[in-house]
Amino acid sequence: MSPILSSVESSITESPIRRIAQLLEKAGDDSSIISFGGGAPSLAPPKEVVDAMISSLRKDPFKAVSYTSTKGLPSLREKIAEDLTKSGDSVDSNQIALSTGATGGLFMALEDIVNPGDEVIVSDPTYVGYEGPALIERAKLRRIPVKKENDFQLTPDAVNETITKKTKIIIILSPDNPTGRIQKKKNVKGIADIAKDNNLWIVSDDTYKDIIYEGSHTYIHKYAPENTITACTFSKSSSIPGLRLGYVYGPKEAIDGITKFSQYVMLCTNKLSQAAAEAFYPVKETYLNKTVIPTYKKRRDVMGNMIKKHLSVCDYVKPHGAFYYFVDLCDSKLDDEEFCNRLLEEQKVVAIPGKYFGNEGKGHIRLTFVSENEKRIEEGILKIKDFMEEL
Amino acid sequence: MSPILSSVESSITESPIRRIAQLLEKAGDDSSIISFGGGAPSLAPPKEVVDAMISSLRKDPFKAVSYTSTKGLPSLREKIAEDLTKSGDSVDSNQIALSTGATGGLFMALEDIVNPGDEVIVSDPTYVGYEGPALIERAKLRRIPVKKENDFQLTPDAVNETITKKTKIIIILSPDNPTGRIQKKKNVKGIADIAKDNNLWIVSDDTYKDIIYEGSHTYIHKYAPENTITACTFSKSSSIPGLRLGYVYGPKEAIDGITKFSQYVMLCTNKLSQAAAEAFYPVKETYLNKTVIPTYKKRRDVMGNMIKKHLSVCDYVKPHGAFYYFVDLCDSKLDDEEFCNRLLEEQKVVAIPGKYFGNEGKGHIRLTFVSENEKRIEEGILKIKDFMEEL
Repeated sequence: MSPILSSVESSITESPIRRIAQLLEKAGDDSSIISFGGGAPSLAPPKEVVDAMISSLRKDPFKAVSYTSTKGLPSLREKIAEDLTKSGDSVDSNQIALSTGATGGLFMALEDIVNPGDEVIVSDPTYVGYEGPALIERAKLRRIPVKKENDFQLTPDAVNETITKKTKIIIILSPDNPTGRIQKKKNVKGIADIAKDNNLWIVSDDTYKDIIYEGSHTYIHKYAPENTITACTFSKSSSIPGLRLGYVYGPKEAIDGITKFSQYVMLCTNKLSQAAAEAFYPVKETYLNKTVIPTYKKRRDVMGNMIKKHLSVCDYVKPHGAFYYFVDLCDSKLDDEEFCNRLLEEQKVVAIPGKYFGNEGKGHIRLTFVSENEKRIEEGILKIKDFMEEL
Repeated sequence: MSPILSSVESSITESPIRRIAQLLEKAGDDSSIISFGGGAPSLAPPKEVVDAMISSLRKDPFKAVSYTSTKGLPSLREKIAEDLTKSGDSVDSNQIALSTGATGGLFMALEDIVNPGDEVIVSDPTYVGYEGPALIERAKLRRIPVKKENDFQLTPDAVNETITKKTKIIIILSPDNPTGRIQKKKNVKGIADIAKDNNLWIVSDDTYKDIIYEGSHTYIHKYAPENTITACTFSKSSSIPGLRLGYVYGPKEAIDGITKFSQYVMLCTNKLSQAAAEAFYPVKETYLNKTVIPTYKKRRDVMGNMIKKHLSVCDYVKPHGAFYYFVDLCDSKLDDEEFCNRLLEEQKVVAIPGKYFGNEGKGHIRLTFVSENEKRIEEGILKIKDFMEEL
């Protein structure tokens, strides 16, 4: 028998989305499964990004796959800084460190800030990936219910009411997963003020900041630069999720702290991925405006129309950003996990149970609209319709 | 002013080797610097490995850079299991999880096992990368001095004497960094027995298991399969350090725990790196026996001869594995850190101060013999000679 594992090992649970990733991997190229499951882009990356990796490998294979510094190539960090400045934030390249996607960045940010017993404020519902890293740090999530009636906004008032002496971080995710809501500017500013007044950290998860169909992204870092660590990723914007590259930025001292942790957690990020990211910036605007946003917007609209037409018993909100519909099953006979399990079994359609996103998510399912094309989105929703009619 | 960072942030220090990586990155292609610093291979990866990545990118760029399951592609994990079985260990592919190099694997293993206050036994001197992750887990290193006279062996007796009620892990690194020693089979077996008798974990760092010039590797996992988590990497054997890929294996429950942590720390490893690793196995034996070992062995011998001939005041041991000479400066007028700082400044030769490897490393320097060719190794040692003569 093996010796006992750590106490946090038993406290954290497997992500349902990752469980589905494993299941789909086993299914291989089984095209009979329609996946509204994971948050994976379905577009190929820009040709320039692919070509840059190939040319780097051809030119000097040794250099293409050698170590970089832990923070990452200075040339790439400068491009990131330029892009952020152009987009309305402001940051120096030495305040940026590369990370293993936004996942790695968020984990590092929490390592950098949180002590055991601290409290971390999040919306409810919100991304399933915040509880795990908080539990690893022996911290506790404090969930603030956000409501459809209020456009799922996380309001300064609600944050103020939730702060205790133990509060250390407010996590902001905008556009949000699973609701797709974009935080309004006045709420972003209000929460920035609260952080400054109460000496709290903000961790801004900007994973979907480039995936916006209506409205625009407000950088909370701009309003509370000394209090904010922002985590970002190339996975969604440049369609390279499997290259595991993202970055964090914030006050230099905090980023230097993250760099120290990174030495012992990942050493450095993948150099070929860094070459890919460097090649992304010159084509970023064109790729997003001509390919990504039009493609995903069309799919969003198709899925929205199909839900409206065929799943009329359910309530849902048209998302203004990100990848997802968060659909209220209303008075479904099944709880959301059972619903998704049986939906997969009986109709081979993957959906994610809402309860994993928090208490407020109970009785909902999350449907990703980017991962399948329009035709398969239509098929999938009709299958859900059939499934629901037979309940 | 920013809010305060976590208490562990201030307790961990920057790795001196990573600091040098950053410095060398800034220096760019400045060939006047001779680096005996980092542990980076200087060979290009096998052509087949490079071609596999290119062909994967060409064939289907979307699939080439998509997410995989957290544990990693089943086909690769099966190849790893086959290779381990062929090499004398025995493991099923579901007992293997991919990691971000051995660094990521070691960190995950510690997360999986250690509670705050636990003690982790290591050799002194040993790899600089164990203290950081232990401190992150709020655990404590217990260092066992190992001596040149005893071939730097970590003996069962010494381990027995060091175990307390708080001991949770014994870390074994063989071949060792910085000493190059290979643990003798009787000591491997003896420590396996101690772990079983005392219900302790062994973390076996097998980073250099394929880099052996004389002797052979003993798998401690074989002698204590329920007590051992092994971390391994493709960085050194297949010369792809910047692709950040490694793996851990051990009891299924422990590996499942690591997989849960990995979901929140890195999500999954790089898919292109997984393609590279798959392509490595068919050419592994040829690449190691015809290219890696002969090249590095020759460089080891050249450096050894040069040290013997020109740095005769120093004591050192000919390493039987890994990448390094660990050289005793004897009665140098300078402490080892000052020695390395001035050596870099005055002669542009990079060496690593021995004190970073533990108390027993004080007054030593570590010289990597794989990163420069024979001519530059000769030049570098002559520069060290000049430097020492002018002290």
